[in-house]
Formats: sequence, C-alpha cells, structure tokens
Amino acid sequence: MRIPYETMLNEFKRILMDRGIEEKTAFEAAENFAQTSLDGVYSHGINRFPRVVDYIDRGIVDAKATPTVEMTTGFMERWNGNQALGNTNAQKAMDRAIELAKENGMGLVATKNTNHWMRGGAYGWQAADKGCIGICFTNTMPNMPAFGARDRKIGNNPFIIAIPRSGGAHVVIDMALSQFSYGKIEEYKLKNKPLPVPGGYDTKGEITTDAAEIEKSWRVLPVGFWKGSGLSIVLDMMAAILAGGNTVGDIGESLSEETGVSQVMIAIDPTKLSSREEVDNVVDRVIAQLKSSEPAEVGGKISYPGESSLAKRKENQEKGIPVVEDIWNAITQL
Amino acid sequence: MRIPYETMLNEFKRILMDRGIEEKTAFEAAENFAQTSLDGVYSHGINRFPRVVDYIDRGIVDAKATPTVEMTTGFMERWNGNQALGNTNAQKAMDRAIELAKENGMGLVATKNTNHWMRGGAYGWQAADKGCIGICFTNTMPNMPAFGARDRKIGNNPFIIAIPRSGGAHVVIDMALSQFSYGKIEEYKLKNKPLPVPGGYDTKGEITTDAAEIEKSWRVLPVGFWKGSGLSIVLDMMAAILAGGNTVGDIGESLSEETGVSQVMIAIDPTKLSSREEVDNVVDRVIAQLKSSEPAEVGGKISYPGESSLAKRKENQEKGIPVVEDIWNAITQL
Repeated sequence: MRIPYETMLNEFKRILMDRGIEEKTAFEAAENFAQTSLDGVYSHGINRFPRVVDYIDRGIVDAKATPTVEMTTGFMERWNGNQALGNTNAQKAMDRAIELAKENGMGLVATKNTNHWMRGGAYGWQAADKGCIGICFTNTMPNMPAFGARDRKIGNNPFIIAIPRSGGAHVVIDMALSQFSYGKIEEYKLKNKPLPVPGGYDTKGEITTDAAEIEKSWRVLPVGFWKGSGLSIVLDMMAAILAGGNTVGDIGESLSEETGVSQVMIAIDPTKLSSREEVDNVVDRVIAQLKSSEPAEVGGKISYPGESSLAKRKENQEKGIPVVEDIWNAITQL
Repeated sequence: MRIPYETMLNEFKRILMDRGIEEKTAFEAAENFAQTSLDGVYSHGINRFPRVVDYIDRGIVDAKATPTVEMTTGFMERWNGNQALGNTNAQKAMDRAIELAKENGMGLVATKNTNHWMRGGAYGWQAADKGCIGICFTNTMPNMPAFGARDRKIGNNPFIIAIPRSGGAHVVIDMALSQFSYGKIEEYKLKNKPLPVPGGYDTKGEITTDAAEIEKSWRVLPVGFWKGSGLSIVLDMMAAILAGGNTVGDIGESLSEETGVSQVMIAIDPTKLSSREEVDNVVDRVIAQLKSSEPAEVGGKISYPGESSLAKRKENQEKGIPVVEDIWNAITQL
C-alpha cells in the first residue's frame, strides 16, 4: 500500500493540530515526518509517528512549547529546548545555525532539554539545501555497551555531516554509532537471516551475525569496536558541554523514557572561502574517484553517502510512500 | 633499550638543524616527534622520523618553508602549507585556531599543500592543554577500498576530537578510519597472531582476522564497514573544500609519495558558554558512568579515549622511551 506524500503530510498535521498545537508548528513537524518517510527512512518517519503522539499525550513531549535562547556569543548560541517536539526544535536550531553561518562563516546552536530529533540526516539536508556544510550530533539514552563492557552505559549518539552540491544531490552521512539500529536487528531476526556483518555479541559473549542471539544479550557492537565506542563518549561530552545539558548517563539515570537530550547543530558557509563552482568541483572530483573503484562483486555498485536516499525520494514521489497497512490505519484513527 | 626524552629530543633537533632548518622550527618538529614517542605512539614518533628525514633530503618536504595565510574571514582562515614539515604546519595551524577561539569562541584553520601530520592526536592534546575542544582531520593517499570496492580509492583520513580537563587528563579520540593501521597489521603478521577483530579481506574476498592474508589482498576494512567508508568520503570533501586543496584522489593521481594533503583544525573555547568547573563536571560525569560498566571479561578494564596514552607518558617519563636498538642507532648516524 502506498500513500501520496501530500495525504500523509495532511494527516500528520491534522493529528498534531487536534492536540492543540498551533498550525505552523504542526505543519513543520508533519513535514519532517512525511519527508523522512518520503526518503525511505520509515523507522523515523511514519513508523515512529504514533510513539511521538503517545509522548505528546503523556506529556513527555510538550508540543506547545518552543525553544528559548539562553546564551549567545556572536555566532554560538545555547538554547533550552523546553521539552518541545524534537524535530521542530532541531529544525529551528539548524535554521539559526545557517543564518549565523551566512553572516559569520560558521554558526553553532547547542540545545539542551530537547527530544529525539527523529532522522538526524534531515538537518544535514537542511543545511546543504542552503549551501552550507552541516554537522549535527545528539546524545541518546544509554543504549549500547562501551567496548569491553557487558551492560549499556553509552549512547549510539548519531553523527551527521552534509556537503552541499548546487544541483541538490548533496552528500550526507547519517550514522548512529552502533553498527546496526535495534530496528534493523529486529528486521533480520524476523526474516531469520544473518546480519551482513557482525552486529553484537551472543549469550556466550562471542561476536555474532545472529540477530536473535544479539536480542538476547542486548549487547550491540559499536561501529569499529573501540573506535565507535570512543567516538560516542566524546560526542556525548561535547553535546552536554556546549548545550549545558544532560549527558547519556543523566538521561538514563533520571528518566524512564528518552527525553531531555543534548544536541549540537553546526553550519559552515563554504562560499566564505571558495566559490560555489569550486565547492562543486571538489565534490565531483571525490565522487568521480570513488566511482572509478572496481566493485568487489561483479555488477556491484559503489555509492556515495546519501545517494540511495535521493533515489528513494524520487521513487516515492512518483509512486507514493509505501506504508504498513495496519500502521497507516492506526494513524488515521489517532 | 630505553632513551631519556631529553636525549631523543636533542638528537632529533640536531639532525634537523644539520639540514639547515632554523633552530625554532627544528625544536618544534623534534619536540613533536619526541612527545609522540613519549606517549607510546612509536609508529608516528621515533619509528617514522627516518622517513621524514629522507623526505627532507629528497625535497618532498621543504623543511625551510613556513605556511602562509591565503585568506581570512574573521575566525576562519585558509593557509598554504607550502610543503613545509607536516607536524610544525599542523601545530602552527592549531595554535592559530586556539587563538581565534579565545577571541571569538571558535576558530578554524584549513591548510592545503601540507604534509603528514604524524600523530593527529597531538593537535587534539594541544587544543585541550589550552582549555579548548579540538577537532582535527586530514586527508591521505588513497590507501583503503571504499565499502564494496576491491581497489583503494579512498583515504583512511584520521579524525580527532579532544575534550579538555583542568587536571590535564584530557579525553582524546584519535582514529584513522581503517579498523587497523598497516603498521598494526604488519605487527600481527610478524607475531603470527590473528587480529582481535576482522581487519580486512582475504584473497578469496572473505572478511578475515588473518593479517598475512590481508597483506596479500591490500583490502583493509573501513571502521564500521559502510559507515567508516562514508565518513572518509565526507571528511575528504570537507578538508579539500575548506583548504581549497587536494582531494585523496588528487594526492594519489599526481604524486608518488603522500604529500600535498589538506587538513582542518577547529578549536572551540567552551568557557564562552560554561565555566571551567561546569566543563570538568560534565566530563567527570561521563567518565564515572562509563567506569560503572560491568566488564565483559572478568578483571577487564573500561577506558576512556586517551587514558592509556597518559599512563604510557608517565611510564616513559620515568623509565625512558623504549626504542628498537637498530632504529635508534641508525638515527644517531643521520
């Protein structure tokens, strides 16, 4: 079953407005969920929408709040997210970072007390659409064991870098610091198929591709073992320091649901140093070099980060966004 | 065999001054090599020193050159490294980024036409010693296959983030984007021991921990497979865009040795937003949470990034820096 983008957007907006959220915020939040679904990231678009509505209904997300500026020092700002909707907070923060970058070359907005931003890549695309390099990171609940640990004390703290291209085919890496998301592990378990590469530990403490075993141990692997574990730790520190907000540990200790996270949005305007043509030329050179690779498998394709996202967007624009019928029907009843 | 820090420093300085390098630059370069060795990163300290001297003698590194400022826009600068020594160029660039951060909250220096910076972590420690968050990255020769590729068309582009602590026990992640360095793979091959986790592909195209097999295929694994591959690509783009310099592909196509690389140094002064005490408090909270992890192995120790480096520094300060006798003897003959 496929749903046109406009239908999905309007339905999300209706549901949010029914909760007393004013139209502009409802539209912005709905647009973020619908565009994330359009780009094929269903886990953080349509499939996540009901949980966010539940958080609103339970008062975990204060959808009527808006972020406030706590401190500003030229091109760096610290915001309080006031527990408002995570995706609209993130979008507003990146908008401001872009504005600061256009004035100053670079802008940074660090937000405390905010909520899950849904698809982090959205804010990378947002910066790139305005011709800026975007760098974004957030902390999370403790959801991953540090390298060498049994229990989950660090976050998979997603990290995004976006490079703008004039034509809109931006290069965007959007990576959580676990090798696989919990959603992806669940998917492989249900299909009863091994993960393509090791994703965690089995109950005996051995590294495995068996998704069902990983679900038993809850021990997912950080990207690159000790390297992703270390990167998670420094991103958490940097987010909490700049935002003056919660660390991963604070989020886990004080709260039963993931809320009150710390996020950082950085925008850099490269045209302060180069022309737009020079920027495009660098990106094209790197992509051409990458594409000249010999595929490891016959007929294999080497993609740049973000490439498949753009292809999926075009497909879903033409054919409509694929939805799980039960989820769509439940949403229309919200 | 162990050599006192001062002896090593003076020997490096003598050798560089013998090549006509003026005393201040010779001291700075020698200090970087000696401190890197002191911290236990021998591969980019003493063991790398002879190769750098060879590059100087062959004119690949112009050790009498100094970097020049090509463009400045407030707190962002673009430098030309003029093919000078990579470690002194990097140190000067980070010094300037710190200075800009102290004035403005953040500083960025992007350098083109520079050389291998040796241990990237050194510039993270440098920023942290001045109370700044340091973020550094560089591109390299094409030395790693993109995920899904057979041949090496991307770089392992090292990436560093440093978080300052008042006592000097900074948190510093210093990661190349290959799971293992070539040096580490060689080390395991010589010991005839399997790598602790998969590090590349064997000649049949299967993922393996067999170091000798990986050396045959030259196919090292990016950190986190597709994730590290993607991160390498965006860091290369960002470095070349901001520096107006070579991409990984440019370095590989035009040059037989690794030279003319592009590097970015970013410093952020967190005291523009928080007190020093608040910054320390965040870092201590994250470390305490990390250390509360249950080790996966009995008696296992969970470390934060940079922790072992500091321990090694103390040991080598007391006992002297361990050297391979042949290498030390060869150096004294330079």
